[in-house]
Amino acid sequence: MSAYELVIGDKSFSSWSLRPWLLLKVAGVPFIERNVRLRQPDSREQILTYSPSGKVPLLLTEGFEVWDSLAIAEYIAECLPEKALWPRDQMARARARAISAEMHAGFPDLRNELSMDILNRHPTPELSAGAARDVARVQEIWRSARAEARGGPFLFGHFTVADAMYAPVVTRFISYNIPLDPVCRAYADVILDLPAMIEWTVGAKAETA
Amino acid sequence: MSAYELVIGDKSFSSWSLRPWLLLKVAGVPFIERNVRLRQPDSREQILTYSPSGKVPLLLTEGFEVWDSLAIAEYIAECLPEKALWPRDQMARARARAISAEMHAGFPDLRNELSMDILNRHPTPELSAGAARDVARVQEIWRSARAEARGGPFLFGHFTVADAMYAPVVTRFISYNIPLDPVCRAYADVILDLPAMIEWTVGAKAETA
Ligand SMILES: N[C@@H](CCC(=O)N[C@@H](CS)C(=O)NCC(=O)O)C(=O)O
Ligand SMILES: N[C@@H](CCC(=O)N[C@@H](CS)C(=O)NCC(=O)O)C(=O)O
Repeated sequence: MSAYELVIGDKSFSSWSLRPWLLLKVAGVPFIERNVRLRQPDSREQILTYSPSGKVPLLLTEGFEVWDSLAIAEYIAECLPEKALWPRDQMARARARAISAEMHAGFPDLRNELSMDILNRHPTPELSAGAARDVARVQEIWRSARAEARGGPFLFGHFTVADAMYAPVVTRFISYNIPLDPVCRAYADVILDLPAMIEWTVGAKAETA
Repeated sequence: MSAYELVIGDKSFSSWSLRPWLLLKVAGVPFIERNVRLRQPDSREQILTYSPSGKVPLLLTEGFEVWDSLAIAEYIAECLPEKALWPRDQMARARARAISAEMHAGFPDLRNELSMDILNRHPTPELSAGAARDVARVQEIWRSARAEARGGPFLFGHFTVADAMYAPVVTRFISYNIPLDPVCRAYADVILDLPAMIEWTVGAKAETA
């Protein structure tokens, strides 16, 4: 029996679900996946059988449940100290948490106008001023993390929670053909090439087949 | 010289600023307060001199900056392990992080319709279905935390980050005269009676005088 069960939504568009799923996969932690189909008449009822917040993702572990993608990530990071899912250096860790929490609470226009749609490709849309600012800010965050990163191609060198938090945005940028500068393009490719990201996309195809 | 400098917005309405300010005050940590007036023509420029995210709050510490209220709270909690600003029990800690992150990313209708306005009292507004659901969910969160809490009147017994995350909502419920069940009313009073909350409100009055 696996110690972890993760309840997630549809892989094509459940951006919040992708975060902890990717984190567990990249960390190499086995888990049981439970799938809830969103946007169905009974979705809310289904989710509420698992999650007090009425939202997915949700992690079931050791007899209790943890909901919210960021809180799940904190819990996983705590359970697996050897994986350094937050950077070991205190300043880098604070920075990683800052950009993760900024993503968690922010970017509403980007979310609305570039909603996750992992299997499709759209022409570059006309963005509102707010969404354009969000897109620019994400790239600024990536550039500034990459400028300091040592020892690997991720935001803080090796893969951390911060990469899991930004992975859905990578897929949005690709789906909507958003122009990226070379540093951001290279970072996006690193995320897209992760075996776990490929597995997620294959799963999305299977779900919609 | 204090080790911490906290940049915040107007005390009357900067809900995100209240969170780390309250956390530092209740933890008894001295800090230098820097005030930026929001909603002014030069606010953005002012904030950007401190904060790469273009938002307050921001914590300056040991030569680096931490932005975002939740990330600041994580950083403070890490620096002060003896204060147990997250619950010491692992399950309670995961729960505290779940409700804190749920607040951080959610409740958009509550935020819009009950915007923080600490010095004023409004008649109970007609709420949208979304905002009504948000209000009910907050009370459910408080009730369920209080039902498990031991050793004090806060969400997890003693004061934790979770209380700091929900303190702005307490003020919203009071400002807009939102009906609260007895457990939630008692919890709201505990927060409002904190000397630090009174100090914040006095500060708000001074700023607008
Ligand atoms: N802050 C939450 C947000 C989760 C969220 O909004 N999940 C969406 C799906 S991506 C959901 O469950 N919505 C409920 C529904 O569609 O009925 C988290 O990070 O986990
Ligand atoms: N996720 C951020 C959000 C901070 C935020 O939105 N702050 C507002 C003020 S309460 C802000 O600085 N807005 C910029 C402005 O008004 O120019 C946090 O938790 O610190």
